Amino acid sequence: MITKADVDAAAARIAGRVRTTPVMTVEPGVFGPAVVLKCEYTQHTGTFKARGAFNRILSAAEPTLGSGSGSGSGSGSGSGDSMTGAQRERLGPAGVVAASGGNAGLAVAYAAAQLGVAATVFVPETAPAVKVNKLRALGAVVRQVGSEFALANEAALAHAAETGALLCHAYDQPEIVAGQGTLAIELLGQAPDVDTVLVSVGGGGLAGGIAAGLDGRAKLVAVEPETIPTLHTALSKGGPVDVEVSGVAADSLGARRIGDIAYELAVRHGVHSVLVDDASIIAARKLLWDKLRIVVEHGTAAALAALATGAYQPAPNESVAVILCGANTDPSDINA
Amino acid sequence: MITKADVDAAAARIAGRVRTTPVMTVEPGVFGPAVVLKCEYTQHTGTFKARGAFNRILSAAEPTLGSGSGSGSGSGSGSGDSMTGAQRERLGPAGVVAASGGNAGLAVAYAAAQLGVAATVFVPETAPAVKVNKLRALGAVVRQVGSEFALANEAALAHAAETGALLCHAYDQPEIVAGQGTLAIELLGQAPDVDTVLVSVGGGGLAGGIAAGLDGRAKLVAVEPETIPTLHTALSKGGPVDVEVSGVAADSLGARRIGDIAYELAVRHGVHSVLVDDASIIAARKLLWDKLRIVVEHGTAAALAALATGAYQPAPNESVAVILCGANTDPSDINA
Repeated sequence: MITKADVDAAAARIAGRVRTTPVMTVEPGVFGPAVVLKCEYTQHTGTFKARGAFNRILSAAEPTLGSGSGSGSGSGSGSGDSMTGAQRERLGPAGVVAASGGNAGLAVAYAAAQLGVAATVFVPETAPAVKVNKLRALGAVVRQVGSEFALANEAALAHAAETGALLCHAYDQPEIVAGQGTLAIELLGQAPDVDTVLVSVGGGGLAGGIAAGLDGRAKLVAVEPETIPTLHTALSKGGPVDVEVSGVAADSLGARRIGDIAYELAVRHGVHSVLVDDASIIAARKLLWDKLRIVVEHGTAAALAALATGAYQPAPNESVAVILCGANTDPSDINA
Repeated sequence: MITKADVDAAAARIAGRVRTTPVMTVEPGVFGPAVVLKCEYTQHTGTFKARGAFNRILSAAEPTLGSGSGSGSGSGSGSGDSMTGAQRERLGPAGVVAASGGNAGLAVAYAAAQLGVAATVFVPETAPAVKVNKLRALGAVVRQVGSEFALANEAALAHAAETGALLCHAYDQPEIVAGQGTLAIELLGQAPDVDTVLVSVGGGGLAGGIAAGLDGRAKLVAVEPETIPTLHTALSKGGPVDVEVSGVAADSLGARRIGDIAYELAVRHGVHSVLVDDASIIAARKLLWDKLRIVVEHGTAAALAALATGAYQPAPNESVAVILCGANTDPSDINA
């Protein structure tokens, strides 16, 4: 069970490794009510996922309880530096492994490179060259396996089992969720009076982490495309189930089911679930460019769409923040 | 002569009319040394120019000294509201006029609409439909006159003389310069320890205003494309002269000569002048997207290029800010 204490520990662990991303207040009338935008798309590799990746890797390199060695722990290695020899030894020679051609893979590759450890990323044979090249540019070994993601994922699991490499899941691991939750701690420091936070949900790593990080200090509204209702369906069915995945946001929010950790956190913290349609997502992304010259990916725009369309309607004096969580997108259609 | 007091007065006058734009600190290694980015491209209409436009219009609507009426002054009308009847009467029935198919025209049209006064914007007959449509969408009357900008400008001057409309220059008026300078006041509030500010220069309205606003509290580095060296040439010749205009940044920095007000401010405050080439500008704009998912226009990227290329090299402990002043650009080429 992930708690605020886990998120606080993650924040201390990754301090100096991730960027403090800016917030800005937008006046009423642009997206409906006044809103605080958390510009997390300026994070390393273009999304919040660097937070979880650093926390997962640094946690695994810490001495286990009772091992008698307190030196060289994650946060002690100094921000911006590679890990110490002792840390790298605890992590093991095979480094880390992930299965993702998208945002999670980029973040793991980046974090591993910064920490001076090897990263292997499994993607399907069908992965576009541009994604493979980005992973390689970050220093990862890319393995193209199978005709679809599920097969690449199986290969990553097998690689972890054979080599001892640390598996970094895209969303459903405690250290990943706690790492993403550091965004909530940062936001509350920047905008302490916020009543409500709107965030887009795919596998739920970010939403779950934010629920733990907020720990009741603000209400969390989880926004999903109607075409990928992983959390919404789980809440109505009483547990995570597979859903059909389609629509404009599938590239970043296209998990088939909500993570177990995120589901438990959503239930425990009473997260409010909202759905938006693809047309609203496209319109919100375009509006963000037209009014603020900010580019985000469609998945990110879903959270803003809930506010702009009134799918979520705050009370008159409710202070609302929207997490702009990623911008790994091609902006060539945005100025039309 | 524009002083810090003029900029402070402008800041009070336009408070609540313009956005407080965010700053973020980027770690060393991305653009060379660590740098504070001032994200002014999120301002209304996509550039800093709304600051000067509001200050120009609101100043003209204030009671003149000795008129005996202190009520209804600019800052007293309340942020976000139209001007009062008394203010509008002082401005006159013809409203405001500008000659610009670019950033200045958009800002004047926006500010006038917000203040509830008429705006007429003169552009050449050759102005692209997309620019004309944007001005009309903001509520301006657009007049297409002449085959080039100089003729549209003459028509604007004639319109002002005939109708009594308030002429809003793109850069060389005291209220415009003082208004743009409010960006410096805001930046110093957000990053009080900054030693040096880098800004791109076209006609010099922003650079001049910032020089006045900083008033020696930080050093100002004025960056121009080699292909449009208006300030650089003026400083070497001992006064403003016309230069040839070309290159990737000509759409936003394409003034033919530095404004008289900006030149005087640059000399008085000892502004440091630096040139960058087009390849560096293009590379800096691309780097900003690759590393931070921020899109700016080429003219804006010039300031960052000076840092990224080492054309300006700060001392080891010098704290540097770069003004990202505009993003009226088509980002379709940025993801290549």
